[in-house]
Amino acid sequence: MANCIFCKIASGETPANVLYEDDAILAFADINPQSPEHILVIPRKHVENAAALSAEDVNLVGSMVAAANKLAEDRGIAADGYRLVFNVGRHGGQAVDHLHLHLLGGRQLGWPPG
Amino acid sequence: MANCIFCKIASGETPANVLYEDDAILAFADINPQSPEHILVIPRKHVENAAALSAEDVNLVGSMVAAANKLAEDRGIAADGYRLVFNVGRHGGQAVDHLHLHLLGGRQLGWPPG
Repeated sequence: MANCIFCKIASGETPANVLYEDDAILAFADINPQSPEHILVIPRKHVENAAALSAEDVNLVGSMVAAANKLAEDRGIAADGYRLVFNVGRHGGQAVDHLHLHLLGGRQLGWPPG
Repeated sequence: MANCIFCKIASGETPANVLYEDDAILAFADINPQSPEHILVIPRKHVENAAALSAEDVNLVGSMVAAANKLAEDRGIAADGYRLVFNVGRHGGQAVDHLHLHLLGGRQLGWPPG
């Protein structure tokens, strides 16, 4: 998508603090972190959000969660725990229309989750 | 798991307000809702949390998100949007040690997500 900031990060056109990448997935630090560790995990493929996942693409979610788990280990937050969040649309607070998983940790997360 | 409340719900031993089920997945209303719609989506198989997913099981996450998307449509919250949350361990606020996805909607969710 020509005007999608996350597509530009995935292609390398826009710089980001990339913490993980493979053929399908990319992860980078959130520029407005809400916890000591706050990382976004995205698919390289442009999908608008979790609600827009086709049957063909839905297993991207498993790859994204696996990447988040690996990052939590790498960043030293796995033992204490963390939260994974997908925002969908306005009520969800989705800020960028390219599927992304928030990984938050390094502090106690409260309840409700927003 | 003999003493797991979500395994007991999945087997029918413990009653719950079941809103969706198939061979692999079950969904029911959270008994302590944090939004007008607050539904838990679980795999029937006992997995401790998202961090404990094996490579073999990780695609359960895709099935869980697909079920959550269907529920959001069925419950009339899809158009306005919603939030999907996995809690892992203490910092994540995980309350039951059986993998579950929180689907929250029906109001504006705030930021940060806890």
